[in-house]
Amino acid sequence: MERAVRELWAESRDLLGLGSPSPDDTAAASAVPRADLPPTPLAFLRDHVSPGRPLLVSAAGTRHWPAASLWPTASYLTDALRSTAVSLHLTPDGRADALAPHPHPGRPGSSSAPKCFASAHVRRVDFPTAVRLIRGSDPAAGVVAYAQQQDDCLRGEYAAVAGDVDAHVPWASEALGSLPEAVNLWIGNAHSVTSFHKDHYDNIYVVVSGEKHFLLLPPTEHHRLYVRDYPAAHYVAEEKDTDGEHQVRLKLEMEEPGRIVPWSSVDPCPGSPEEMAAQASSFPLYFDGPAPIRCTVRAGEMLYLPSMWFHHVSQSPGPNGLTIAVNYWYDMQFDIKYAYFNFLRSLEIDDCSSGEAGALEGDLEEKND
Amino acid sequence: MERAVRELWAESRDLLGLGSPSPDDTAAASAVPRADLPPTPLAFLRDHVSPGRPLLVSAAGTRHWPAASLWPTASYLTDALRSTAVSLHLTPDGRADALAPHPHPGRPGSSSAPKCFASAHVRRVDFPTAVRLIRGSDPAAGVVAYAQQQDDCLRGEYAAVAGDVDAHVPWASEALGSLPEAVNLWIGNAHSVTSFHKDHYDNIYVVVSGEKHFLLLPPTEHHRLYVRDYPAAHYVAEEKDTDGEHQVRLKLEMEEPGRIVPWSSVDPCPGSPEEMAAQASSFPLYFDGPAPIRCTVRAGEMLYLPSMWFHHVSQSPGPNGLTIAVNYWYDMQFDIKYAYFNFLRSLEIDDCSSGEAGALEGDLEEKND
Repeated sequence: MERAVRELWAESRDLLGLGSPSPDDTAAASAVPRADLPPTPLAFLRDHVSPGRPLLVSAAGTRHWPAASLWPTASYLTDALRSTAVSLHLTPDGRADALAPHPHPGRPGSSSAPKCFASAHVRRVDFPTAVRLIRGSDPAAGVVAYAQQQDDCLRGEYAAVAGDVDAHVPWASEALGSLPEAVNLWIGNAHSVTSFHKDHYDNIYVVVSGEKHFLLLPPTEHHRLYVRDYPAAHYVAEEKDTDGEHQVRLKLEMEEPGRIVPWSSVDPCPGSPEEMAAQASSFPLYFDGPAPIRCTVRAGEMLYLPSMWFHHVSQSPGPNGLTIAVNYWYDMQFDIKYAYFNFLRSLEIDDCSSGEAGALEGDLEEKND
Repeated sequence: MERAVRELWAESRDLLGLGSPSPDDTAAASAVPRADLPPTPLAFLRDHVSPGRPLLVSAAGTRHWPAASLWPTASYLTDALRSTAVSLHLTPDGRADALAPHPHPGRPGSSSAPKCFASAHVRRVDFPTAVRLIRGSDPAAGVVAYAQQQDDCLRGEYAAVAGDVDAHVPWASEALGSLPEAVNLWIGNAHSVTSFHKDHYDNIYVVVSGEKHFLLLPPTEHHRLYVRDYPAAHYVAEEKDTDGEHQVRLKLEMEEPGRIVPWSSVDPCPGSPEEMAAQASSFPLYFDGPAPIRCTVRAGEMLYLPSMWFHHVSQSPGPNGLTIAVNYWYDMQFDIKYAYFNFLRSLEIDDCSSGEAGALEGDLEEKND
């Protein structure tokens, strides 16, 4: 089975024109196709949506957006959203919706290091405060703030500035036969990272300020992500006034009632050599397999990310200290590709069974507390 | 594994909007989508090519073809092609490119009934003679003739009448971004049958006279076809003049040097109750699984058959005694769907291992002759 799956990886990369680089290849070896101009709807559908092939469109596609010139300036957004309350996601380390050490790791002496799926502490603050907290975000200080809400927030909380970008992506809407289901805004700094996951949407991701760095794996490489069940937890804020200074400390608590989230076990950029060694030995299909496809999206550029592609995202701020991005989620077509994916996912391959243990064990410990 | 594959069958039919009928459902339960008018290129690409979903277009799409009125008349084609030599495929039973009993079945007393892959005897005759032989075709007389040649023959042998149909299918060419790789003409009577197979082309199949009856299975149902390796054979003609009458007798001979053809073992319409019982017990995944999708294409109608779909075709003649059809083969896109198909095909499921034995055994016997 493992040999058949590895052949699937190689053939799908080959057919997608993405090469099949060895783990130590450089980024250039497997690049996302680039277009200087937005594609026609027909070419987009035929060459990208139908085969499931990403596309990076140059800044020519968004040059007409007022946001392209207005949003990167220091004061425009804080003026326009002066009295607007927005959802700010707070974590100690910039890793929301990601695995974190289980707060109650169970039996002492257990060899496993159980993990949980940690969601951010979400707080509604006025936009200027949000920007101040984002700019000052630093894991060393114990708080990283990320303004985002995946609920069509550009047309909700940020409606006052939604007119600064196109309401939809015309060539994508015509190709896909629908308008976006959601348009989301994302504002953070270099410390916010999005862990490997996939979305059930066709995604057009546009960077307005700074850069986004994507690691991509096609859906055929599902097994390399070691998706496992993890118990859900969320950060809660403990507030304290010390020496006249207001301090927030974020603490992880298991959700009650318990909830299980299937999530990728792989952290492609672990923080220490020890963690890297542990990852590499636990998840060989990822670390010994073909390198992920790397794609940096610069200000003005748009990335078409096909539905069901796994992506890990980190970012660099622009001169304003912020990474600002807008994404358009279009309903995906559930077709024969989706049926094949579910079939693939239902199969176990030998190497996968050696994945991270202890997650559910930790959950049971939690329930027994 | 078998359970996962059966779930794939059900889910892909469900997502394609083709239902998942039980074996005894009527034809109406899983019908090919119909369109009164030809689709726009974008809708065709989005709703049919990309998801891999067939489409039947009404006769409105070909009403402007001169062939629609000219070809069904008795004398037009024989006049226009009076002195044209065409390729006529001769078999004793109308089953070219199909399994047939191995002419040298090996050890006496062997319980298996080895088969081979039998190709027609191809003869170049003038078109009026071809039509006479096709009209008189009858397995009872030992010869069935089918005018066809899958080598772009409409623009080759039949160039004199190629202008009677559109040179390509405009909405398909625009959607697929290319002109047809081949345009083929098919003229036969009710006795010619095409056995289950798939093509590496996107296919637009147009009936001009009579009707074509398709049995369809999506590529996800590969294992139900019991594709096995068979040694290749071809019919040769033995001519005899008896009592002033010229007679042709077709005899099957193994190809030399030997050649192996992977082909479906399943005959969905066996000729006798005994053969039906043998088929049903040898190929349970086909006979006990979901019913094939049935689609009759009537004169003037066009069937879009997505690449890699398995199809079995039988036919009924029009008032002129002939079934006449034209098909346009477009190069398919080898994309992630194709990679998934190859992966699926590489997997063995338990029930399949009980498939027809003896094919290769027969081949070895042949080589030892």
